[in-house]
Amino acid sequence: MDVRAAVAFEAGKPLEIETVQLEGPREGEVLVEIKATGLCHTDKFTLSGADPEGLFPAILGHEGAGVVVEVGAGVKHLRPGDHVIPLYTPECRECKSCLSRKTNLCTAIRSTQGKGLMPDGTSRFSFRGQPIHHYMGCSTFANYTVLPEIALAKIRPDAPFDKVCYIGCGVTTGIGAVLFTAKVEAGASVVVFGLGGIGLNVIQGAKMVGADRIIGVDINPAREAMARKFGMTDFVNPNDLGPDGDIVGHLVELTGGGADYSFECVGNPTLMRQALECAHRGWGVSTIIGVAGAGQEISTRPFQLVTGRRWIGSAFGGARGRTDVPRIVDWYMENRINIDDLITHTLPLERINEGFDMMARGESIRTVVEF
Amino acid sequence: MDVRAAVAFEAGKPLEIETVQLEGPREGEVLVEIKATGLCHTDKFTLSGADPEGLFPAILGHEGAGVVVEVGAGVKHLRPGDHVIPLYTPECRECKSCLSRKTNLCTAIRSTQGKGLMPDGTSRFSFRGQPIHHYMGCSTFANYTVLPEIALAKIRPDAPFDKVCYIGCGVTTGIGAVLFTAKVEAGASVVVFGLGGIGLNVIQGAKMVGADRIIGVDINPAREAMARKFGMTDFVNPNDLGPDGDIVGHLVELTGGGADYSFECVGNPTLMRQALECAHRGWGVSTIIGVAGAGQEISTRPFQLVTGRRWIGSAFGGARGRTDVPRIVDWYMENRINIDDLITHTLPLERINEGFDMMARGESIRTVVEF
Repeated sequence: MDVRAAVAFEAGKPLEIETVQLEGPREGEVLVEIKATGLCHTDKFTLSGADPEGLFPAILGHEGAGVVVEVGAGVKHLRPGDHVIPLYTPECRECKSCLSRKTNLCTAIRSTQGKGLMPDGTSRFSFRGQPIHHYMGCSTFANYTVLPEIALAKIRPDAPFDKVCYIGCGVTTGIGAVLFTAKVEAGASVVVFGLGGIGLNVIQGAKMVGADRIIGVDINPAREAMARKFGMTDFVNPNDLGPDGDIVGHLVELTGGGADYSFECVGNPTLMRQALECAHRGWGVSTIIGVAGAGQEISTRPFQLVTGRRWIGSAFGGARGRTDVPRIVDWYMENRINIDDLITHTLPLERINEGFDMMARGESIRTVVEF
Repeated sequence: MDVRAAVAFEAGKPLEIETVQLEGPREGEVLVEIKATGLCHTDKFTLSGADPEGLFPAILGHEGAGVVVEVGAGVKHLRPGDHVIPLYTPECRECKSCLSRKTNLCTAIRSTQGKGLMPDGTSRFSFRGQPIHHYMGCSTFANYTVLPEIALAKIRPDAPFDKVCYIGCGVTTGIGAVLFTAKVEAGASVVVFGLGGIGLNVIQGAKMVGADRIIGVDINPAREAMARKFGMTDFVNPNDLGPDGDIVGHLVELTGGGADYSFECVGNPTLMRQALECAHRGWGVSTIIGVAGAGQEISTRPFQLVTGRRWIGSAFGGARGRTDVPRIVDWYMENRINIDDLITHTLPLERINEGFDMMARGESIRTVVEF
């Protein structure tokens, strides 16, 4: 079938809106009509060419919501008409990881997904007879896409696509890191580095679980007002500390000895170290969420860990996609979390590149493309 | 009173056996007759001068066992005749750390202990009228010493001093890291870097909790036999992999995807990184126990953490001294842990320097000095 897609033909070039061909679902696969998709920094990172694992040409996008149109043979849990959110972290419930009870990082289709292919090793997308890569197993920058059944979360039918698409990545990544990875408890002190689309969700996750003190750190003063609305209690702009400012010392003082939990939501190794070192001696847990550039490394003195700080990371918020994403959709529908205010811009597919430009300029929190 | 002590007058020089003066216990303090003390790498590290926080002159030693001789005013939980193990990590049960339920790192007397002084800011030891520093709050290289009440674990009177003194540091550090810090569970795979006095205790801790696979890593082949006796199931000598050997890849393969738990018991940042990276994607926990040299740093790609590995550390095995040390003594008396085979040498105080020489040559696991 013909579908409308924003295609990434080459690294570093804008996306191009084209009509591409999509094959129907094979065994265990599902055809989904994408109704809305968010634009995420990870799409931009891949498009820029900085991601060493980026493949071209590809149809990017991994933060969508839509409706099941057709199911392939053997699909058991979904049928046409079901509302779904695509999952770049699937949940097969059968692999060693899914059965471990310790991680959300299902490995059932990892190798083919990393190659931009469906689990059978082929692509469903093509353009002028040449295959186009899938992206993160989702490719939501197309109005129709095909995914494995295990990579789709079934959600309630009354949830608006143009809002809950954000749960496909940013919302879950931020809130989940607090709830499922770090397991922040009521009364805790929390420091959040980076008040963008992930950091703001970390903040509302921390508020949701009853943290006492939620300190946001960002060099963009324009982020303060929004962050306070989401639950931030204190704002720290490192630039206000002067060129010799000791941000770690300042945060340790502000938290009365160090943060119970800190989160890095930028992808900057220097901030990752600061986040660890501002955590409380004896028990502070520092969670890396941001994705660092290729080849970058984190470092610290081992003494920081020996004296009780814990350095961990979170991918997709530690959420099991099929199990937890529908719950997060429920939380949104029950007004327990705020997504509406985070979606600052909405665009048609044809103007998708404008969304990435706004992201680059720091003007938007989240831009959603509606089909 | 006059006491016999091995005094560290200067960094890099052998200890000197002298008669020094010891004041009696002040308020909240206890005079203890030390019956036996182990020699630990940390004593050697400080004596060498490599420890930037080392103070001289000092009476080293922090792995002792003895009998209460006299108690100062206000001492509530101990009386003369009680058998005790000195604690370099005290347990006041009143500070923020002790009340956190999250750490064993009591901070009640940290600042004075770090300065080689008793909590009132003075020393009880002197030589020819000049004060001598306490060490790690213990100073067990003397046949009598004074400690705060909160830095003494009361143990059963039938436990032999020349064995249970080792619980004052090495045994608890190793076994505790498994039980209290990493919380290894039955069926787990465990990799242990370094099969010295700490690593062997990690191994017996892992065996105690029912780990399936216990892999030891050491470049000294002489360590294999002892480690197997303590529960090691597989031995890996990195030198056997050749100069281009990939120790991480080898361990990942040997564990079928990575270790559930790994422990670094050497103090080498390169091994700390290997220990992290051989941990299983999604849930592997790597615990740093070894103490690195001044200024050394650990590093890795943040991707290692984002994909679910956890980097933590352990001091004194995460054990609360007054609460957990008596339990570990019980385990020894019930033959649930083996200490006897780890104590390879026994010396009188006068020959203490020989013990450090054997340690340097890797000949001993533990040398105990009996008074």
